[in-house]
Amino acid sequence: MSEARPAAPQSERPPEGVTAPLGFRAGTARADVRGGGDPRDDVAVLVSDGPAHAAGVFTRNRVKAAPVVISALHLRHGTVRAVVANSGNANACTGARGLGDALQMVQETADRVGCDPAEVLVASTGVIGRALPMDRIRPAIATACGGASEAGGAAAARAILTTDTRPKETVEHFEADGVVYTVGGMAKGAGMIHPDMATLLAFVTTDAAVDAPVLRRWLGPAAARTFNRITIDGDTSTNDSCFVLANGAAGGAPIEPGSAAAALAAAALERALLTLARAIVADAEGATRAFTVEVRGAVDDDQADRAARTVAGSALVKTAIHGADPNWGRILAAVGRSGSELALDRCRVRIGGEVVFERGVAPAADLVRVAAAFAAPGLEIAIDLGCGEGCGRAYGCDLSPEYVRINADYTT
Amino acid sequence: MSEARPAAPQSERPPEGVTAPLGFRAGTARADVRGGGDPRDDVAVLVSDGPAHAAGVFTRNRVKAAPVVISALHLRHGTVRAVVANSGNANACTGARGLGDALQMVQETADRVGCDPAEVLVASTGVIGRALPMDRIRPAIATACGGASEAGGAAAARAILTTDTRPKETVEHFEADGVVYTVGGMAKGAGMIHPDMATLLAFVTTDAAVDAPVLRRWLGPAAARTFNRITIDGDTSTNDSCFVLANGAAGGAPIEPGSAAAALAAAALERALLTLARAIVADAEGATRAFTVEVRGAVDDDQADRAARTVAGSALVKTAIHGADPNWGRILAAVGRSGSELALDRCRVRIGGEVVFERGVAPAADLVRVAAAFAAPGLEIAIDLGCGEGCGRAYGCDLSPEYVRINADYTT
Repeated sequence: MSEARPAAPQSERPPEGVTAPLGFRAGTARADVRGGGDPRDDVAVLVSDGPAHAAGVFTRNRVKAAPVVISALHLRHGTVRAVVANSGNANACTGARGLGDALQMVQETADRVGCDPAEVLVASTGVIGRALPMDRIRPAIATACGGASEAGGAAAARAILTTDTRPKETVEHFEADGVVYTVGGMAKGAGMIHPDMATLLAFVTTDAAVDAPVLRRWLGPAAARTFNRITIDGDTSTNDSCFVLANGAAGGAPIEPGSAAAALAAAALERALLTLARAIVADAEGATRAFTVEVRGAVDDDQADRAARTVAGSALVKTAIHGADPNWGRILAAVGRSGSELALDRCRVRIGGEVVFERGVAPAADLVRVAAAFAAPGLEIAIDLGCGEGCGRAYGCDLSPEYVRINADYTT
Repeated sequence: MSEARPAAPQSERPPEGVTAPLGFRAGTARADVRGGGDPRDDVAVLVSDGPAHAAGVFTRNRVKAAPVVISALHLRHGTVRAVVANSGNANACTGARGLGDALQMVQETADRVGCDPAEVLVASTGVIGRALPMDRIRPAIATACGGASEAGGAAAARAILTTDTRPKETVEHFEADGVVYTVGGMAKGAGMIHPDMATLLAFVTTDAAVDAPVLRRWLGPAAARTFNRITIDGDTSTNDSCFVLANGAAGGAPIEPGSAAAALAAAALERALLTLARAIVADAEGATRAFTVEVRGAVDDDQADRAARTVAGSALVKTAIHGADPNWGRILAAVGRSGSELALDRCRVRIGGEVVFERGVAPAADLVRVAAAFAAPGLEIAIDLGCGEGCGRAYGCDLSPEYVRINADYTT
């Protein structure tokens, strides 16, 4: 069922998102999952016209939502035909009933797509601890499957959102052996974001032919360098799920591990994940500024990553950046509690190019310029720990009164 | 030089604070450490009339402020005659000059008190990375020493504050072998509070005679069960210091380890630390509510403590409590990421007496009552992990827009 390449002129295939690659369709519908009469579509279905090889990474939170449990089981099946997702309710901490509801979502999707239930992945996001309104979700899944189209990626990217203010989509291309392949993706984020494997709901598709073991080998390290490097509020979700589906619809030979094509494909996948991860930070709940923490000179890469993420997650660093208050000492205090080794007398901290700390003391840094750097887009904090060759980075955002307001009044 | 017991009627000794125990005096003065013309006293001196045995616990942050380095060295000396402290400047990340400034504070105090510099401890709190204005601090120390009195505890408790809104003082008594002993204390907190040994500036005095090794043996576990159980914003300070001084001024025999008196003294010390720790949480930056997280059923006590502190530190739990939003799922999500084992099907969560989660599912909890519990004083969240016999607890506070405002504009 996959289309010929190049796409016919009448194709509705969008330039980015999960239906940018050939052979994928998406549909959405409204189930009013929240029960408040929300007019938005809140159920999305992603369908691969043919069987797709797939891999996934999930939250390491010991409290795993029902859809995480079901999807992890189904990924062992090897191929995937569809993914069904809802926003507004996480289906977490819902016991046996929650597992039953997730399986019902899978069954309804399988019935409509015409595949085995084990070929369906499921994901949910929203409030924890409430039962799904299955009487409204089942017909919505039917509607979403019935309307699934090549043009549906953008609507699906909107349907999975919760407190996000904008959809997050991406596209990457790579060419191997004369075939141009596409990698598309969508994600949602906003809060409870401190991924320990992947972040809440990221779906990546490609029309390249890649076996599941190869996808798995790529996805773990790529997620570690992208989703696992972002933090919004230090809270790891119960529902974090990142899926990648490869359906081979672009034609071309299966991509063999170790080949030049494999290197290009893995790089395209990682670029797609990075774009989605950074889009999540940029649209964090209440955030007005995103920033990057670049650490070098650590004992090893793990320590560098840990130091970077501790700085990016520090409430005091985040509030200082929010207020453009050049209070750089908080950066060193965060590094100091991260558990990473540092040599204070060889340590250096730069904020947007301005050196604020070097060889154990503070030079006469221009605090007005530091404040301006805090307020400027694309802020980069660079830290040299003075110990070794380890490098790492993290992506963070400021902490605003708006974050508190959003989360002080989420379920009510 | 210690006074006779009972205190003479004309004694100015206050009912609580560091000068409540016999043989301690305190004085304060204004050095305008912040340089903005602040009218408050910001230098405090605590003097023991005779040599006091002492112990201390300090931040485990790898970035240690100069006064932490000096005080840790001086504690090896065995006896202490005085403690000098300033607020408004942490003397952290200040290199060799910072060490020299801390030593100057010690020397000036020793000169005025008439003791060896090694018998003086020093502590600072405030902004990181700026040099102390020693030209103003030296004369202020002289003034503070000159005016030190039995009545000076309350003024000292005010002089060490930064963004705290009120002083934190405590007193405990215990009687052993016919002698009534007093334990007094003061502390400051407010922000950068996630102690990993002790919290920023706590001073405890007693007129009991206790050797330094015994004090050390008591202080570590007591700090672990009090200061190390509080969290305000997850940021561990560079300056955390908790000192306990025992000068024997009440008379009575030295308290021997293993004796009944030792048990009473250690318990009084721990009660004093707990009062100060909870006072710090109650006066956290921007906080409107303090709460306790009680964990049982963990594999061991360490895991219980970790789970409790993760819940108490969760930005999402804190914002839900701020908004009295009965979003209890965030509690389980925080437990799940804490690293502590839990058996979800035997787990139970109670909020102010209302069971919100039990045996893997949510009973029909009255969310209005949960919201009321979140808003009520003395909120307790009780979690049974369903795994074993381990118990632990943590003390936290809500996260408010005011916290962000305070910290977005701290140095400017």
